[in-house]
Amino acid sequence: MVWRGKNVTRIVRTRGFSSAPFSPPARAAVYERHGSPDEVLKIVDVPGRALDRREVCVKMLAAPINPSDINRIEGVYPMRPTPPAIAGGEGVGKVELVGSDVENLRVGDWVIPTYSGVGTWSTHVLKEETSWCKVPDDVPIEYLATISVNPCTAFRMLEDFSALEPGDVVVQNGATSMVGQCVIQIAHAKGLQTINIVRDRPGIEEAKEKLMNLGATEVVLDSQFDSPGSKDILANRGTPKLGLNCIGGASAGAVLKLLAPSGTMVTYGGMSKKPVIVSTTAFIFKDIRLRGFWLQKWIQEHKREEMVAMASSLIELVQAGRLKYVTEKIGFEDFERALRKALGKEGSVPKQVLVF
Amino acid sequence: MVWRGKNVTRIVRTRGFSSAPFSPPARAAVYERHGSPDEVLKIVDVPGRALDRREVCVKMLAAPINPSDINRIEGVYPMRPTPPAIAGGEGVGKVELVGSDVENLRVGDWVIPTYSGVGTWSTHVLKEETSWCKVPDDVPIEYLATISVNPCTAFRMLEDFSALEPGDVVVQNGATSMVGQCVIQIAHAKGLQTINIVRDRPGIEEAKEKLMNLGATEVVLDSQFDSPGSKDILANRGTPKLGLNCIGGASAGAVLKLLAPSGTMVTYGGMSKKPVIVSTTAFIFKDIRLRGFWLQKWIQEHKREEMVAMASSLIELVQAGRLKYVTEKIGFEDFERALRKALGKEGSVPKQVLVF
Repeated sequence: MVWRGKNVTRIVRTRGFSSAPFSPPARAAVYERHGSPDEVLKIVDVPGRALDRREVCVKMLAAPINPSDINRIEGVYPMRPTPPAIAGGEGVGKVELVGSDVENLRVGDWVIPTYSGVGTWSTHVLKEETSWCKVPDDVPIEYLATISVNPCTAFRMLEDFSALEPGDVVVQNGATSMVGQCVIQIAHAKGLQTINIVRDRPGIEEAKEKLMNLGATEVVLDSQFDSPGSKDILANRGTPKLGLNCIGGASAGAVLKLLAPSGTMVTYGGMSKKPVIVSTTAFIFKDIRLRGFWLQKWIQEHKREEMVAMASSLIELVQAGRLKYVTEKIGFEDFERALRKALGKEGSVPKQVLVF
Repeated sequence: MVWRGKNVTRIVRTRGFSSAPFSPPARAAVYERHGSPDEVLKIVDVPGRALDRREVCVKMLAAPINPSDINRIEGVYPMRPTPPAIAGGEGVGKVELVGSDVENLRVGDWVIPTYSGVGTWSTHVLKEETSWCKVPDDVPIEYLATISVNPCTAFRMLEDFSALEPGDVVVQNGATSMVGQCVIQIAHAKGLQTINIVRDRPGIEEAKEKLMNLGATEVVLDSQFDSPGSKDILANRGTPKLGLNCIGGASAGAVLKLLAPSGTMVTYGGMSKKPVIVSTTAFIFKDIRLRGFWLQKWIQEHKREEMVAMASSLIELVQAGRLKYVTEKIGFEDFERALRKALGKEGSVPKQVLVF
């Protein structure tokens, strides 16, 4: 499925530094227009070019397929490149070439992008030095490739919305999601308790056990909220100051039901495609507070150093064996299959990580 | 309709200070149990009693019938006295007697309660000195009697949720309500612009004109939001940082539609009895923030001095002719009629203010 689009050169800037290092040709997943990823994505040969003085050529090692990548390609994500563009927002790679003015990166360094959307589904990526953040090279690539979106989202939501002390309780829905699993483990590392709401479905007992092994305090089924005694779910635990919602609809209602007075629920996803519905009395008499979180906006509003520090502390958790999640590595040559799986066309699968 | 309930003595504490001043007998609107106000309220003769040393006997001048008073009687309001209780939360009166240790109030002073729910539908009210706040005696009683609930709610919502600068825009629904009218005028005094959403109904043109005369920047009909071009409502005005919602349902949706990114909508009422419905993307990508406001909770969490200062500055606005609203005075002897009107049984009427 090699394809040379006539517009691809638009994404291959060339500048005339005759003595500058020249990048090798790359193979990349490119979309020329927005649409369904399996229709608009093509694997393209991109010719090499001379590096800008501040640029770094990174040979990609691994890159995941995230829902936000899909939405950017579909054109429904608020911040997105204008096509033609190379797809993919996250990943890890190894520095192969550096421009003459690059100061802080060396050939052989392992790096991750400091912001999303740089076009990581490509064997080689050329970006300015400041677009990259050095990472240790003794951590499994599937973790490094996936550290900057989901774990960072979980990390920030536990930091930014509520002054949580050890022992405090956090409630979340969609707890089996990757962010959900990160929330459990980061909360556990902070000494926080988590009440985790999961969808009642075949095989859920096994999934519950997995979450308990990650450090969940309690895992409850959404179906438990249909019965009248659902407030007893909290038993003797404190009521949650913070709720996290990635689903909407009735599942967001379950989070709200358990939330303490003056508690905050943060919405960061809408998997059910249903809205959040809240009674006016919950606002007035329970002082419920509703917020949203979007990592991309956080990154835009904060210094690069803060992102770097956050990624470092998450990588340390991985190194300490305190942050684990399951991914499935698949060769970039099998891109079509990885994409099909990521789109849910082969049932429920772990996060797909392309390996180059 | 004089009635002497056997439990009324429970609300008439008597302590034995032989030389203490003795309050005159009072007539009061009392409920012995929760229920529909027109069924459970009785006008009762309450015998006089000796004042505690720190108590003040206030001869009431005027007291409004607020929705929260109705809800307390019905038993559906979260903070409420246990029956038997004298109804009414707000009002103005004149000090008639003071206990021996009262320091800051004198006979003849005009006072309002510093917190709601003291039982103001009574010819005389006995409460500790600290339950009262001295007010000027040259302001119409219908304003003094109604200053501490609705105008204070409007005042706080414009203070506590958003850092507003002169020129900034506030959007609200239910703009013809008493709080809504106060929002328009307090915002106007602060140099803020207001976009006011009102329900499309017969006679609305006249109501719109009244709001414009109070200082509204713009008055829009809720029906305008049904058409596709409703975002043009804002025209060249800035987008509102703050939204105020006392209705819920589609009307809350209209406020949310106009709200700026990272704007806050504060819910303080639910007149439609419909919930607030928000898409998950409004939280994630527009960073919409939802809060609630309840004056009673604010009062509990703040010093008495802050309430006194707020009431004073609102009374100053009244004195300056910059805070106006329509009320209807009705004699306490016509209590049943006033109640019927307040319950909406004689159509749309101004706020009923009992005069003693």
